[in-house]
Amino acid sequence: MPSDGDRVREVRITPVAFRDPPLLNAVGVHQPFALRAIVEVVADSGITGLGETYGDATHLTRLRRAADSIVGVDVWHTHELARRVGALRDDSAGGDGTSGMVAASTADRVLSPFEVACLDIQGRALGRPVTDLLGGAVRDRVDYSAYLFYKWPGHPGSDHDRWGAALDPDAIVAQARWMVDEYGFTAIKLKAGVFPPEEEVAAIRALRAEFPGHPLRIDPNAAWSVPTAVRVGADLDGILEYLEDPVAGIDGMARVARAVPMPLATNMCVVAFDHLRPAVAADAVRVVLSDHHFWGGLGRSRALASTCETFGLGLSMHSNSHLGISLAAMTHLAAATPNLTYACDTHWPWKDPADDVVDIVQPGTLRFTGGAVTVPTAPGLGVDLDRDALARLHEQYLTCGITARDDTAYYRRHHPHFDPTPPRW
Amino acid sequence: MPSDGDRVREVRITPVAFRDPPLLNAVGVHQPFALRAIVEVVADSGITGLGETYGDATHLTRLRRAADSIVGVDVWHTHELARRVGALRDDSAGGDGTSGMVAASTADRVLSPFEVACLDIQGRALGRPVTDLLGGAVRDRVDYSAYLFYKWPGHPGSDHDRWGAALDPDAIVAQARWMVDEYGFTAIKLKAGVFPPEEEVAAIRALRAEFPGHPLRIDPNAAWSVPTAVRVGADLDGILEYLEDPVAGIDGMARVARAVPMPLATNMCVVAFDHLRPAVAADAVRVVLSDHHFWGGLGRSRALASTCETFGLGLSMHSNSHLGISLAAMTHLAAATPNLTYACDTHWPWKDPADDVVDIVQPGTLRFTGGAVTVPTAPGLGVDLDRDALARLHEQYLTCGITARDDTAYYRRHHPHFDPTPPRW
Repeated sequence: MPSDGDRVREVRITPVAFRDPPLLNAVGVHQPFALRAIVEVVADSGITGLGETYGDATHLTRLRRAADSIVGVDVWHTHELARRVGALRDDSAGGDGTSGMVAASTADRVLSPFEVACLDIQGRALGRPVTDLLGGAVRDRVDYSAYLFYKWPGHPGSDHDRWGAALDPDAIVAQARWMVDEYGFTAIKLKAGVFPPEEEVAAIRALRAEFPGHPLRIDPNAAWSVPTAVRVGADLDGILEYLEDPVAGIDGMARVARAVPMPLATNMCVVAFDHLRPAVAADAVRVVLSDHHFWGGLGRSRALASTCETFGLGLSMHSNSHLGISLAAMTHLAAATPNLTYACDTHWPWKDPADDVVDIVQPGTLRFTGGAVTVPTAPGLGVDLDRDALARLHEQYLTCGITARDDTAYYRRHHPHFDPTPPRW
Repeated sequence: MPSDGDRVREVRITPVAFRDPPLLNAVGVHQPFALRAIVEVVADSGITGLGETYGDATHLTRLRRAADSIVGVDVWHTHELARRVGALRDDSAGGDGTSGMVAASTADRVLSPFEVACLDIQGRALGRPVTDLLGGAVRDRVDYSAYLFYKWPGHPGSDHDRWGAALDPDAIVAQARWMVDEYGFTAIKLKAGVFPPEEEVAAIRALRAEFPGHPLRIDPNAAWSVPTAVRVGADLDGILEYLEDPVAGIDGMARVARAVPMPLATNMCVVAFDHLRPAVAADAVRVVLSDHHFWGGLGRSRALASTCETFGLGLSMHSNSHLGISLAAMTHLAAATPNLTYACDTHWPWKDPADDVVDIVQPGTLRFTGGAVTVPTAPGLGVDLDRDALARLHEQYLTCGITARDDTAYYRRHHPHFDPTPPRW
């Protein structure tokens, strides 16, 4: 029978901010700081588990309510964790940390970091990596993709950043070259929906010429109309690995899917369990980009993976700007998911290496080489909190003046008449 | 990192036989002995985990090959267990322990007892019940249903058994009365497909009169034609909780589903992950009867449960004739599956209490009171092997002369012209 040592004694939630370059997307541009919340779950045994999630103010309020509700729960009882978080019945809108782009289940978004932290505690107590709690690693390295962005040269009013501007195909190819050289990525994704589709198609063609062997993806975050998406799909026949969220909604995606030659992928129209049934019925997508941050944690993401396998759907992984706890959790999940066969997304290269809150326990793990990350085999997630770094990034949160991600509002400071309402093209 | 103590050192497989009464079904009648295989997985630490599965000769051959293939695997690495069993690529037919009624995945059927035994080892090592390895128990008691059978008074050439004949509605009601009085069941299932549907409908009506508050189910194991099933469905409107496998195949079930007022349930047309997609597309069933013995073990059954929840399918649980290890595994699984809301099937009342291979670790658990079984909280499955009993039931296996379940052949000894080919009505 579980000892009292395995119950949640205390939960600490610390909002942090880290510098983020002005990456452009369909709804605007990244603000100068990205926000995250660092979750520490302390068991009666004294073992602390870590989780990481969005840092928007609305989400923080929900996290704090959830934290109060889970005190006393056995860290192995993830059904009970989910029940308590679900019982809060928080239907407030917003605070999703995705600038409105991902309308996932609020309960699953809130549950996720606590579940991850409980798995971290389980693993630490057992002396086993989190992969072992998910059926064991089926690979010792997890492939990630080069995640290219159009970007401004620097934040307005600041110097140019280390990457400089990327506003045309040549600059996108240069960005890809840097990222592939630096990290070894073997797949490339372009965040699109920023410029007229012709320009973005030209960027993809330029990437294909420069990287003939790299699978390519483009993601305009639903900025296109169905006819535009169908035209782009025809244009890029034989060039794309998959076409990600060209249009909004399951119905629109299904219309595009019937007309284009490549698979459609999504992290916008299927972002919660409730969306799977209608998406399957409409045959709207061939690839689901999972994301444990909004699918309710690692256990529920494994369930999603199994459902995808059962229904013949491919599985990839979505990312927001994130720190090392999320990288560890993503890597454990991907390693323990046999049918996660696409290279995962990550914003990692856009983060200043000095901006993080964790130390890596095992040298050689959780670093990018050859486009992949070696999976930790140390107990739990394989990362320890660096309290000085946490304090520094929390201080940065307090002083940065940002309490919610809002790419649109930030873009409008410089382009007041910007309207992100889709379809933009 | 996992110590060597957690690797599979040795696997023992012991076929056993236990007395079984002459229960009638659509394909014949139960033989005098039911066969099971008892699986013991021994870890390097010396901890032994238990599993139970079918005991047919063909299945035993497969189990032995699988046993050889999993030596050295870490007991937490269930993906690797599944990979090794799948890699055996055994496509031989038969030996499914269901007399041909359930055409499940061979790989998942073979995997199941090893996975259960590994979870038993995990739980014993952790000092936690298997429920905790499945997200924690969401209920401390699991409801089972009274599983009624038409039956002969005794096996031919033997005395009448303790239950006597059940060949008409009155006898079925008497059987139900005994079972409800003895076990406290609050739901009732009639195994049908034995007599013309009118007689079986009359039995259901008699049960309804005698047990006005008990949910009722009827299961003719696909012995009916679509028109017959539709007629019976109309007849029993408002009386059945669900109608189980009235006809064969997803297409036939879908035709019946569109025409009858009650939900259809199945453990025949959806018995493997591959069947879910076409069944959902055809809207063929509303309730899936899971069974960890053919769905690949407890972890994969949890994945099935999640998929059912996602696709709006109800979840119940199927049973074959089984012993105490299976009862424990079924009870842990049901307790840790939030959306398993129907009373589970079990053949338990038809087993002589003296015929078993285990001791129950905690008094008061794994016994039927009020129609439910209290979930063990002892480490692992909560049952220990009784080696004397195992030896006795193995000796019974060696002497009983049965090496495969074949209800049809046994029935034909007494009714040589019996033809079970569906639809019989």
